[in-house]
Parts: sequence; structure tokens; C-alpha cells
Amino acid sequence: MAPMGGALLGFREFYPEDCALRQYIFETFRSVASTFGFEEFDGPILEPLELFAEKSGPEIAEQLFHFEDRGGRSVAMRPEMTPTLARMVGARAAALRRPIRWFSVGEQFRYERPQKGRLRAFYQMNLDLLGESAIGADGEVIAALIASLKAFGLNEKDFRLRLSDRQLWRHFLASRGVSDDGAAGILNTIDKMGREPESVSREKLCSIVSTPVAEELLRSVKELSQCTTLGALGAFFRSNGHGAAMDRLREWEELFNILTAMELAQFISIDLSVVRGLAYYTGFVFEAFECGGESRALAGGGRYDNLVKKLAGTDMPACGFAIGDVTLGNLLREKNLLPRGVCNCDFWLAFDDVNKFIALRCANLIRQKGRSVLYSLVEHLSLTKQLKFADRAGARFAVLFGFQDETGCSGENLCVLKDMRTGNSRTISINSLLEECACLT
Amino acid sequence: MAPMGGALLGFREFYPEDCALRQYIFETFRSVASTFGFEEFDGPILEPLELFAEKSGPEIAEQLFHFEDRGGRSVAMRPEMTPTLARMVGARAAALRRPIRWFSVGEQFRYERPQKGRLRAFYQMNLDLLGESAIGADGEVIAALIASLKAFGLNEKDFRLRLSDRQLWRHFLASRGVSDDGAAGILNTIDKMGREPESVSREKLCSIVSTPVAEELLRSVKELSQCTTLGALGAFFRSNGHGAAMDRLREWEELFNILTAMELAQFISIDLSVVRGLAYYTGFVFEAFECGGESRALAGGGRYDNLVKKLAGTDMPACGFAIGDVTLGNLLREKNLLPRGVCNCDFWLAFDDVNKFIALRCANLIRQKGRSVLYSLVEHLSLTKQLKFADRAGARFAVLFGFQDETGCSGENLCVLKDMRTGNSRTISINSLLEECACLT
Repeated sequence: MAPMGGALLGFREFYPEDCALRQYIFETFRSVASTFGFEEFDGPILEPLELFAEKSGPEIAEQLFHFEDRGGRSVAMRPEMTPTLARMVGARAAALRRPIRWFSVGEQFRYERPQKGRLRAFYQMNLDLLGESAIGADGEVIAALIASLKAFGLNEKDFRLRLSDRQLWRHFLASRGVSDDGAAGILNTIDKMGREPESVSREKLCSIVSTPVAEELLRSVKELSQCTTLGALGAFFRSNGHGAAMDRLREWEELFNILTAMELAQFISIDLSVVRGLAYYTGFVFEAFECGGESRALAGGGRYDNLVKKLAGTDMPACGFAIGDVTLGNLLREKNLLPRGVCNCDFWLAFDDVNKFIALRCANLIRQKGRSVLYSLVEHLSLTKQLKFADRAGARFAVLFGFQDETGCSGENLCVLKDMRTGNSRTISINSLLEECACLT
Repeated sequence: MAPMGGALLGFREFYPEDCALRQYIFETFRSVASTFGFEEFDGPILEPLELFAEKSGPEIAEQLFHFEDRGGRSVAMRPEMTPTLARMVGARAAALRRPIRWFSVGEQFRYERPQKGRLRAFYQMNLDLLGESAIGADGEVIAALIASLKAFGLNEKDFRLRLSDRQLWRHFLASRGVSDDGAAGILNTIDKMGREPESVSREKLCSIVSTPVAEELLRSVKELSQCTTLGALGAFFRSNGHGAAMDRLREWEELFNILTAMELAQFISIDLSVVRGLAYYTGFVFEAFECGGESRALAGGGRYDNLVKKLAGTDMPACGFAIGDVTLGNLLREKNLLPRGVCNCDFWLAFDDVNKFIALRCANLIRQKGRSVLYSLVEHLSLTKQLKFADRAGARFAVLFGFQDETGCSGENLCVLKDMRTGNSRTISINSLLEECACLT
């Protein structure tokens, strides 16, 4: 037959070297999340379509792999974890001890035009803290994000976390007389300001508020976006007089005190121009970005106190973040921070025909101690050939059974242990080998 | 809004306790596969529909979640890994060092009526050895399967591997004058014999061969199926004279010698009534079954020397197996072989308002050593309350910062380490705590 085609556009095949890196990224994140006391959960990859439409509106279907299943039900491959998280937490809200600390490592699917750093199937590492509205919870989640990125060997020269605050923006807009209804459209405009010509932003603002107000907004939004210290934020709001904003700034201080105590404050850049498009954020929002280079976004998150209520009917303040595997993997590769392929062969067993079954018995016993063992699966090979295979497999040690003529080792229950790195050999009893094998490195 | 519905029928939500068990099963399998020198790979969850139709015929679509994507392409959620494996191996056949030892842990999807032990989304742990036709390869794969099940604590009273052989069956049928074309239909009938009335089997056989031949076949198939030792198989084929079968039995002996050397032969039951429905098996086939109880199938596999050629155009002998997570998980649960929830909190930090930031600094440093740390995220809590939280979280140790009146500990840079299991406390310098924390258990 004609050889089959490849994988679908935007989907990846993971050959062993790719899979090892994927697992390294997942396991590193899992370790950090565990040190913060977070527990892993997961949900179905296929969900009712309405689960996602409920959160994001019916137009989300345009970006999804969705279809009608054979039972006539509209289903979609999940584009994100949050709606599933909300459902699961909501269903057991009464039984779960708060705060709920959950993380997940899951594949997500979006029908988008594939491009660098953006695929149709990708993994997200999510971490969410639910049931706690105190600033300590925001601090905990931000600390977990920074600690996760640090665990890959990234430092403050490699990435920075841009911190902003929906609540501060709302106070600011309220002080300008903008209603909560108008705020959404204005925040949406602010979110895009860096990427659109000023004339477009001005036009959008004018469609929401009167022209003089729009002009004043445009000016003060720019001014606020340029505040990069707590002091500057304080000065801005003092001179633009709004008490609620000053109260909120005390919570900013609290957050910085927490992150300073944890020796993580140097990773934070105050940047109010970050708004994050998703409408459901209610408080602190943040994005982790690569410093310099392509300035790619590595992760994002924030506080979303109303979403679980909206989706699952349960009051549940929450904050969290998501790290994508594609951009992070690319960055780690460029920075040479991905581990080299690990040796997958601790012991290569070489044996002559007489000693084959003695060697196989040892293979079984060494493997039971957690060490990896390989040998040739075909018979009657010369010692030279078997050692060549050992070398190719990157074996750490070779163990020779028999081959009396070549090794001079003739006693029963003896074998020769060869260090493939140094080339040194020593004769050793099989019992000693079995005792030592767990510790030989 | 009205709370949303639940997950789709046949799909699972993994709450932390479920997720921990899933990860335990995956990690145990990964460890064993690694000791045999196998490397993990993975492929896309969504594939072109024709990838599966090529192997199993177009009627496979009936059992799949398949749809037309927005680009008009017929796609399906993978029901198994083997076609993807064949494509990936075929695409790099020239570069990959043989034998290829690959395993995978992946979710699969089938549109079937959900029932006990059978879901619409489930995980399979696959292990395949490709590029080697020697019996040693069959031995290696069977040994890896038994070692995997043993690693969960299952022993020869819990499960057995029923071993059969498509090649022996073909020799047998050839000796009865059945052509290779007729053999497929007859093997299919033999596969179902245990589950169908004899009259049905007889009728099926009569539609393929003449009635007298069918009668003789029925009798000798039953006789062959009752052979449970190598000696009995030898006697059967000697008296039913077929030289090729006797040659094949020497390969059986070789396989048993390998498994005996590895101290695994006691897990094998010779059972020629196992044929395995899938048409692509060409040699040894096997199924791991629960002993007693519901006699559920835990895993299955065998040699499939022609499939990679058929799917990817590359000559590539192969053998392998798949373990499903659902039945295995149920069995381990019933046998009480699943680990208890592990403590997710090594240290609970309790602090008064003055010492909060000292405690947070310690939290960060202890976490960097890989230990998990929790504390209350709200302020101004009494020591009693914080210790109650520590207890509820199952903390191994509590560390008290400040609370001079309660603890009598007043020095700077001192804290109190409380063993939550024994209730014992000792005053310790913060520096000593940071040094010891990695080793405290």
C-alpha cells in the first residue's frame, strides 16, 4: 500500500526524545506544585459544548473542535480546563476543604491557524486556589508561578511577571464617572492599546463616552500605564483623588510584602497596561513574559471571583494561572535549559550460549531493583559484537557472563563488570553484582 | 444560572484522590518499562480517520468518535495507539536503531455502550518491541508484561497469562488441508468457541469446509485447546504428524526457557483456545487474566509481523501488549493494592502577625528543597486555630514562629518544631530548621 500521510496540521508526534522533554516539563511543574501543597486533578478531554459556551458565549464554537456525537449530543474537545474545574469544584463544594489547591496538566484543543508557538493541540499546566479571597491567596499563586518557572532554571534575566489589577482599573474608571457597564468596553480597548494605533483607541472610547471624557481618559490611561512603582501608583491616585483606589493600593503593598519575604519580588514588573482580554478576571491579573528576545508570553492568570458562581452556582472566590507547554519548551530549548537525553541503559549483559539463562536470571533480578538492563535478543553473537551494541546503547556498565577465553574469568558464579566510561574491568561474583547493582553509578 | 450538568457518559472526572491513583498506575508501569530499556513515545489524540480505517476496515468508524473538521477533513479520536506507532516508526525506519523498544501511556476513545470495566475514554499502557523477529523478543515483551503486573503487587494467585500461538494454529490447519484463505474464518470461529453453543461453531465451520472435515476439526480443535503442557502439545502434534508444528514447538521450548530463567514461567498457562480476534497477529498471542473472581482480562498482546508493512510500507517484525487502566484499577482496588492517599503537607507553618514574613521566607526556602509547605492565607489567627488547620491538613510537622506567650520560645531566629504524630515539640534555630528540613521524616 502507499505509505500513510502524517499527523494532522497543528498536532504533534512525540518521539522518545520529545516525549522525555515533555515529561521533564510536566514533572518539574508537578514537583513545584506539590511543594505548595497543590493536588493534581483532571477532567474529560471531550465535554458537552454548552460547558464552554456558558463561559465564553456561543461564538467560542468557532474556535473549537466540536461535533455532534452518534447520540446527537453537541460535544467539544476542551479548549481550556477552567469550566471543567468549576463544574468539579461546584459539584463537591460542600465536601471540599477550603482553600482548595488544585493543579492540572492537560491537553487542550483549539481550531486556530497554526503558527510558531501556537498549535491546535497543546498542553497547559494550570494551578488554581479556590475558596479564599485574601491577598495571601493571590500571593501564593503568583509565588507558585514564579517558583515553577525558576525550577526550569529561568532567572530574573530570562522572564518577568507583569502585574496589573482589574480592581484598580475599576476604581480609576469609577473616579472618571464610568459605570460598571461601560467599564467592560473601555477595559477591552485599554487591553488592545499597545497593539492598535491611537486613533483607533480614541474612536472606540468616543463610542462609549463623550469626546472630552475620551480625550481625558486616553491621557490618564497612558499616564497610569507608565507607573512602574508602588510610589508612582500612589502619587497618581493621590493627585487623581480616589479613596477606594488608595485602599486597594494597601493590598498591593501587602502582596509585595509577601513576595519580598519569599525573595520573589525582583520578578515583578508593575504594568497596568496588562488587562487580559478574558472578561471574567476581577482582581490582580498577571502575565509572565520572556525578557528581551521575542518577549513571548509564557503564562498568564489572575483572580476570578465570580466565575465558579456563574458556571456552577457556588460562591467561590478563586485565582490561578496557566502555563503553556509550547512557548515554554521553545524558550528552554533556546536557553539550553532542557536536559540531555538520559542514559536508558544501566547494564548491558553480554553472554555466551552456555551462560544465557544465568544472565537472564540476573537481568530479572537487577530490573527488580529498578535499574535498566538490556542485552541482545538474538543468539550466538561474539563478545566483540555484544560490546559494540552495549556501546551504541550508551550502557553505563557491561556485565560479561562466560567468554572464558576472552576474559580469563573461569570460576562458577563469577562475571566480569566492565565500566563502559573508564574501560576498566573487574571480576566479581554474581551475588556481589546483585547486591551492588542498585548503587553502582 | 442553573448549575451545569455533569461529564459525558463514559467519561471520567479525576478528583485529586482518583488522579493520584491514575498517576500511581502510570508511574509504576513507566518504571518497569524503563528497567527493560523501553522509551516513552506519544502521538496525537486526533488523527485522520483513514489511519484507523486502513488497519481495521471502514466499519471501524461505527465505533469511533469521528467527525469532519472545519477544514472538511475526516478525523477521529484515536481508539488505539498501534496505527500511530506504525506511522511514526515507518517514517523514521532507516534512522531508528533496532530493536526499537517503545512504550506509551495514552488515552483512547471508543463510542461503545459504557458498562463495567468498559468506558468511552480510557487509558492504555502499550509496550512494543519492533525490528526483531527472534523468540527472545517475544520473551522480552511477555516478561515486561508480567513484571508490570507484578510491580502492582499482583502475584501468580492473582493473575495468569494465557499463552497461545497463531503460527501453531496455522500449522495445524495446514495439516488438515485448510488453505491460508480459509484459516482466517476458522480461527475467527475458534476464537468464539468458548462463548457460543457448539452447534453455532459447527455451522460456521461447515460453511467453510465440508461437513466431515468440519466434524474432525471440531473434535481436534477441542483436543488441542485442552493441551496445557508442552509435553501434551508435543504428543498431540506427534500423533497428528506435522513437522512444521514440531519445529515451532522447539521455539515454544526456547520461550519457556527464557521465562523460566527469569523466574516468570509460573505465570504462564498454555491455552490454545486463546486466538485473539484481531486479524493482524502472526505468532505468539497472549492474554493476562485475573485468576478466579470475575476472570477479567487485564492485558493482551502478541506478535504482529506484517502490520507495520501494511500500514507504513516498512518491513518491521513486531510484538507488544496493551494494559487497560480501567479493569486493572478495579482489580487493584478490590485487592486493596492501591496506595493510600499520601500526606501532601510536610510542614505547616503557624505564625503570629509579627513573624509572618519570617515564616514566608522559610516557606520559600523549604519548598526549594522539595518539601511541601502550607500555612493559613488569612491573618490574625490564634495559634490554636492554626494548629487545628495543620492537623486537618494531615501535616507531618508544624513550625511555630512567634507566639512567645504560648510557647515560651522568645529568642530571635528561633522557632518551635512540633512533631504532629507524637505531639513532641522542640525549640530549634531557624537556620537548623532550614538545614534539617530536607531530611525530617
